[in-house]
Amino acid sequence: MKANDSTEADATDSAGNTAGRRRGRRPAGEDTRAALLAAARAVFVEQGFDRATVRTIASRAGLDAAMVNHWFGGKEGLFAAAMQFPVDPSTLVDELLAGGVDDLGERLVRRFLSVWDSSRGGALVALIRSASSHEEAARMMREFITSVLFGRLAAAMDSDRPELRAALCGSQISGLALTRYVIRLEPLASADPDTVAAAIGPTMQRYLTGEL
Amino acid sequence: MKANDSTEADATDSAGNTAGRRRGRRPAGEDTRAALLAAARAVFVEQGFDRATVRTIASRAGLDAAMVNHWFGGKEGLFAAAMQFPVDPSTLVDELLAGGVDDLGERLVRRFLSVWDSSRGGALVALIRSASSHEEAARMMREFITSVLFGRLAAAMDSDRPELRAALCGSQISGLALTRYVIRLEPLASADPDTVAAAIGPTMQRYLTGEL
Repeated sequence: MKANDSTEADATDSAGNTAGRRRGRRPAGEDTRAALLAAARAVFVEQGFDRATVRTIASRAGLDAAMVNHWFGGKEGLFAAAMQFPVDPSTLVDELLAGGVDDLGERLVRRFLSVWDSSRGGALVALIRSASSHEEAARMMREFITSVLFGRLAAAMDSDRPELRAALCGSQISGLALTRYVIRLEPLASADPDTVAAAIGPTMQRYLTGEL
Repeated sequence: MKANDSTEADATDSAGNTAGRRRGRRPAGEDTRAALLAAARAVFVEQGFDRATVRTIASRAGLDAAMVNHWFGGKEGLFAAAMQFPVDPSTLVDELLAGGVDDLGERLVRRFLSVWDSSRGGALVALIRSASSHEEAARMMREFITSVLFGRLAAAMDSDRPELRAALCGSQISGLALTRYVIRLEPLASADPDTVAAAIGPTMQRYLTGEL
């Protein structure tokens, strides 16, 4: 999965001095990838996640839209890489759904922690920071939660009011990110994943499948 | 309750051009109050909520510590006024506990919305914004959640792990504030209080009293 190795390439890209260059000449493919990431960041900020198209982003980079699918598997993967998410969110949703519905809430929290704990919140912290002060970042976060992540999970359940369920999931997970990584509220900030999953998993399970 | 009428005085104070002055000369009491608020903001930022003392704040304002109790009822009330919270949090906690434990979670969410909806999040949005980028604000938010608000609620329950429960409450309520007021995630952002209380109340109830 290409989005997985985006962190190094992205850090590199924003520093304007790539690991590739430090080691010698950068392969042509990396230039393509970096150009797409730069164009994606600009277009996602200007137009938000929903309105931005793969065609617009590729054209901004002077490349063919097929390059987006080749390098990032589609718009979600490109967004994830541009935002330095360590996983492709559509792959994540498929993976969670493949495990069934029974303990979905707990697996969701566990997967969230497995992705973000290693970087102490990483780019997600940056996104929450930006969303607090920039409407563009707020819109991206909003659309990403509804269109990509929890919207797709909630829609796959056989439950009423999927949009409200997606937003409720967003409220608890963004609050977990805020308290665990941003304000570092103890004992939640350093609780082990089992404790957090046992505590917050049932909340997510109810938001996705329970009585509201 | 003096902290309740803090919003106008605070807005006034930061504008440096008080309603009192506009109407004529400001009463001496208002000068005292404004001096205490200015000192409180400085000292809470420098030392955090826990370490800041009423004595230090009063002394910074060149006043006697008794003035803090007279005008704000104590450190919590002064903090609430300095942060432009529309209610005194210790009064809020007492009021919630007086209603019993049975539907505490739902009443908590309802009360939270009754306080914050009218100002679309008001100073709470500012605090979340600051906490995202300033360690001082993060520390204040952290200590406020644990020492004053949910810490006192959780400690009053007959439940295990009160600190974890307080932090879990903080994660859901701060996530609700983030999604409803900051990123305005629909349909949660404009859902009526009954819907939000019915959806999130049971989460708070479980965090305070249920199995974790």
